[in-house]
Amino acid sequence: MHHSRKKIQTLFFALCAFALPAAVFAEEAAPEITAADVMFTVNNTWMMVSIFLVFIMHLGFAMVETGLTRAKNTVNILFKNTAIVAIGLLTYTLIGFNLMYPTDWSVAGIIAKVTFGVICPEGGLTAAYNPGYTYWTDFLFQGMFAATAATIVSGAVAERVKLGPFLVFCTLYVALVYPFVGSWVWGGGWLAEKGFHDFAGSTLVHSVGGWGALAGIIVIGPRIGKYVNGQIKGIMGHNMPLLTIGAFLLWLGWFGFNGGSVLSADPGMVSYVLVTTCLAAAAGIIGSMTASWTIQKKPDLTMVLNGCLAGLVGITAGADVVSVKAAVIIGLVCGGVAVVSVMAFDRMKLDDPVGATTVHLVCGILGTLFVGVFSAEFSVMTQLIGVLAYGAVCFPAALLLFIILKKTVGIRVSKEEELKGLDLGEHGQEAYHGFQFFTNV
Amino acid sequence: MHHSRKKIQTLFFALCAFALPAAVFAEEAAPEITAADVMFTVNNTWMMVSIFLVFIMHLGFAMVETGLTRAKNTVNILFKNTAIVAIGLLTYTLIGFNLMYPTDWSVAGIIAKVTFGVICPEGGLTAAYNPGYTYWTDFLFQGMFAATAATIVSGAVAERVKLGPFLVFCTLYVALVYPFVGSWVWGGGWLAEKGFHDFAGSTLVHSVGGWGALAGIIVIGPRIGKYVNGQIKGIMGHNMPLLTIGAFLLWLGWFGFNGGSVLSADPGMVSYVLVTTCLAAAAGIIGSMTASWTIQKKPDLTMVLNGCLAGLVGITAGADVVSVKAAVIIGLVCGGVAVVSVMAFDRMKLDDPVGATTVHLVCGILGTLFVGVFSAEFSVMTQLIGVLAYGAVCFPAALLLFIILKKTVGIRVSKEEELKGLDLGEHGQEAYHGFQFFTNV
Amino acid sequence: MHHSRKKIQTLFFALCAFALPAAVFAEEAAPEITAADVMFTVNNTWMMVSIFLVFIMHLGFAMVETGLTRAKNTVNILFKNTAIVAIGLLTYTLIGFNLMYPTDWSVAGIIAKVTFGVICPEGGLTAAYNPGYTYWTDFLFQGMFAATAATIVSGAVAERVKLGPFLVFCTLYVALVYPFVGSWVWGGGWLAEKGFHDFAGSTLVHSVGGWGALAGIIVIGPRIGKYVNGQIKGIMGHNMPLLTIGAFLLWLGWFGFNGGSVLSADPGMVSYVLVTTCLAAAAGIIGSMTASWTIQKKPDLTMVLNGCLAGLVGITAGADVVSVKAAVIIGLVCGGVAVVSVMAFDRMKLDDPVGATTVHLVCGILGTLFVGVFSAEFSVMTQLIGVLAYGAVCFPAALLLFIILKKTVGIRVSKEEELKGLDLGEHGQEAYHGFQFFTNV
Repeated sequence: MHHSRKKIQTLFFALCAFALPAAVFAEEAAPEITAADVMFTVNNTWMMVSIFLVFIMHLGFAMVETGLTRAKNTVNILFKNTAIVAIGLLTYTLIGFNLMYPTDWSVAGIIAKVTFGVICPEGGLTAAYNPGYTYWTDFLFQGMFAATAATIVSGAVAERVKLGPFLVFCTLYVALVYPFVGSWVWGGGWLAEKGFHDFAGSTLVHSVGGWGALAGIIVIGPRIGKYVNGQIKGIMGHNMPLLTIGAFLLWLGWFGFNGGSVLSADPGMVSYVLVTTCLAAAAGIIGSMTASWTIQKKPDLTMVLNGCLAGLVGITAGADVVSVKAAVIIGLVCGGVAVVSVMAFDRMKLDDPVGATTVHLVCGILGTLFVGVFSAEFSVMTQLIGVLAYGAVCFPAALLLFIILKKTVGIRVSKEEELKGLDLGEHGQEAYHGFQFFTNV
Repeated sequence: MHHSRKKIQTLFFALCAFALPAAVFAEEAAPEITAADVMFTVNNTWMMVSIFLVFIMHLGFAMVETGLTRAKNTVNILFKNTAIVAIGLLTYTLIGFNLMYPTDWSVAGIIAKVTFGVICPEGGLTAAYNPGYTYWTDFLFQGMFAATAATIVSGAVAERVKLGPFLVFCTLYVALVYPFVGSWVWGGGWLAEKGFHDFAGSTLVHSVGGWGALAGIIVIGPRIGKYVNGQIKGIMGHNMPLLTIGAFLLWLGWFGFNGGSVLSADPGMVSYVLVTTCLAAAAGIIGSMTASWTIQKKPDLTMVLNGCLAGLVGITAGADVVSVKAAVIIGLVCGGVAVVSVMAFDRMKLDDPVGATTVHLVCGILGTLFVGVFSAEFSVMTQLIGVLAYGAVCFPAALLLFIILKKTVGIRVSKEEELKGLDLGEHGQEAYHGFQFFTNV
Repeated sequence: MHHSRKKIQTLFFALCAFALPAAVFAEEAAPEITAADVMFTVNNTWMMVSIFLVFIMHLGFAMVETGLTRAKNTVNILFKNTAIVAIGLLTYTLIGFNLMYPTDWSVAGIIAKVTFGVICPEGGLTAAYNPGYTYWTDFLFQGMFAATAATIVSGAVAERVKLGPFLVFCTLYVALVYPFVGSWVWGGGWLAEKGFHDFAGSTLVHSVGGWGALAGIIVIGPRIGKYVNGQIKGIMGHNMPLLTIGAFLLWLGWFGFNGGSVLSADPGMVSYVLVTTCLAAAAGIIGSMTASWTIQKKPDLTMVLNGCLAGLVGITAGADVVSVKAAVIIGLVCGGVAVVSVMAFDRMKLDDPVGATTVHLVCGILGTLFVGVFSAEFSVMTQLIGVLAYGAVCFPAALLLFIILKKTVGIRVSKEEELKGLDLGEHGQEAYHGFQFFTNV
């Protein structure tokens, strides 16, 4: 009562020229299974579960962005988020994965890496790999991360960005900028050597996306009707259940984002990271609820859900090294700051429909610095150097990309299309055909 | 090509003063890995997967409640459900986790426990722990359960409860009542000694929530327009896709709720529990479909999805000890009873918008009794004693809390707010901005 | 601080007459745990995770079908998809599981199998089982697959099929046709012996559903208003966010559909299958985006999401034996073909609201043939024989079932009901009570 496994196994060997670790298939070669073989299998299984969790974050991002924007731009937002996942994964396959972990950043070095890609990895699985998982698991886990950075930008420029040019931006940002700066820490580069600590990417993933978002909203400008005669007009999102689905899926996915960053199924480490991650999210909710109830008089659902995400971004850098108490404090602070920061960006006339700059940039920076504050092992100063270094490369790079696109193909839809909605303009489709809704809200 | 794991490991040790079991890190201390180490890692991995599944039930509850109520109260419902998760987890961190497993229920004993909380656990990981997982895994798994009880109440009092007072109720119910009665069985208390069996919480979780729900709807009264001149008026839910998403997520989550309650990855036990759980859910659908098609002439989607949940609640007490055939029967009966029970509550003018009392209380009791019926090892009488004991404490406790809140700060929104919707009243927000919908339905 | 496990264990033994492998409970009998015991536990854990992933595909199918159809038929679609899961699982319990793997297809042989069912398995767990998991895990994994075939048909005949007769069709198709043809390959039958390769079911699951879908739309005819005076009228879906949720959940679930089909947690194999699966999905998005942008001038979200699913169906047959590069090509081709195929079916006046015939039949066939193209081990000719054999049995069988139902109880709702919507007609319920939407779109 089973698929015929033996045959499959043999075929797999015939096809894979890559040097898979002997341990993995020891079971097949001989009946003797060692505890080390099994540990490798457990670790790899945990990493695959983490991959699924990070994958579902992409649906989470899509739902948060959809929920916080207007019904007339829904198809466009869903399309962008779907395309970004595909572009991110394929780009990472062709270029990014190999670029992220080299030391040779000369043109020749890059080209050497690019021409290979995962399709034909150099040397296949080598001893340089973490013993916790296979080459393929590593590739997929990292590839799922890569697309995230571009997705963060998507929300900030929503409701006015032109589809084609934006996808070009995503491709370049994920293919070049993300792996370049990522190599500084996770590639064992200069920042890692300096003692900079970013466990799962408050800076390496979230602030990278956040800097791109900030550059994007500066270049593209606010949505029509957002800032009128010096007044800030609220543009309400159209679907709070979708926003909530998105936020919960992101929370769920974060268990894999942080838990998988342990890079093995180590029981003590992983379960500890899950606890700090989860309590920071819960505290983010309480922090933002308190701030929102105090400042806005009525507790705002969008603020509270963004506060949850703020807590998650904040704990990401230090989930492995701060105490449980510190995790709660980090969550509370990031949740509270999120409410104030969203208002501050609006006051600066930086229109970010989903609060991506607040959640991913501001709280990404905060979380990175908190590692220095709450862990005796790390220096706030080194953490700050890291934060600034990322800003110094990512922000100008994103700015340059957006400006080039603006000057050449244009980055923003026409005024008519923006008013009518991007769904009809870019896709000739409606998200809620048959329903009556107002497009001028 | 990996995050630098070694460093992380070392830091973790430096920070954690808790006595982690030697086995967990044996891999680090010496290259020798034993099969027992790996088994611990597998068990812990399974428990972490169960945590994720139980977590996603909270989104499931939020969607079921949202789908079954009116559009004008959606933000409020999403807000409540988000806040409850945060409150539940943090309360459990501070108080509940330690309260659930003590023997000393004197005031001094409680205070001693409370002042510690998970933030500084007494003795850390001790031999008293189940060898299946770490302290942190246990905490998170139990914490995810705790919030459930409050969530169940949320649905029953929806569309008229005042936000602030309700959150106070949740905090007290989760912090004190849930762990107090939970300790009777899972804390090795008097009911456990009597031979009472409740595998994963038909009584300990679902009926505890159900008794709270019953107390809530008695104190708060029916929604305006529900019972007019002795007539029962149907108040239709506004979003059947969200209801369906919620029910499927709950079914999914139940695999972790019940499967994780095995407390290890034991292949025979866990997979058996998954089968009984899954077939009871499927049978709940068939049972309620049959009842609904027969009684209401047309098969009702809300009845069928509640029937699915009814089957799941019903199997929860005995998923480990009843036969597969019995699991199907339990599902069929609970599914059928759910249809009749929802109608009966309405006839008693007890207005429960989501049927929480039916699904969680009635079927929680049924499932607990069925353990005695379908398993020769257990006595129906002992099961009944357990059911009554929980009712005797939870119902009056919840009633008292609700009455105190009603007499002091008030538990119900104003008539104007209820008619206009709690979204505008409590939050100043709309769930579906731009859409046209009727608030007087 | 744990549920009392010892007692549970003992009870389980008392109840289960089935011969569970000694290894599973070795931990209990004696403290000595072997690496082989643990490997069994890991493999079983992975398979249980796969079960959860395949389960959630049912929600994915429900959301895709809901999103792509009109608001007035939503309750009916949700109802069908919920009922199918229950019927599929229970039917598989009673009949299908045992039918799928026998050799004796005589009437007596079938009856012998049917009378037993999983409720009392012959011999329980035997050595014939794959060492990767328990009897129960196998049953649940296969049971989750079975319901899929019927679900595929559901989408094709949506918005006009009568509920009762359709559920009868599903029951018979899942109970008899699916396991009969499934036994040819996964039951070690004649096609397996011929060297036909279908890793996870491009043919065995998807084309089986696809042939049923094709038969269904031929017998039931197009929706009113779809083909008017030789013109093809687009009937737009009503909810693009739900469609997107569905497509992402299907993608997620496919990790278990394909990854679980390895039938163990083998690190190299499973992670490789995840990579080919994931990249084929990504490439399906790019392939369909390119085709849609080229042919339709504007990129269509429904095409792109169906392209993603097309890539997934396409890779399913060979996820274990094709190279990563081939996986990308398969995805690109299937994604592109999906766009053209949807248009072609419309030109043939075969009205399939969700494109099930395109995604599951056309791409299921393509994927099966691609195994022969991209893997030197397999012959295109043998693959073609398999494809034709499945068509030769499934299509006539489905056609016969649908025709018998049409001639007896009728298979299509009345014209009035179709225009008014099946929600009111079949269920007396609205999906979006209180919202204004047009039913004549």
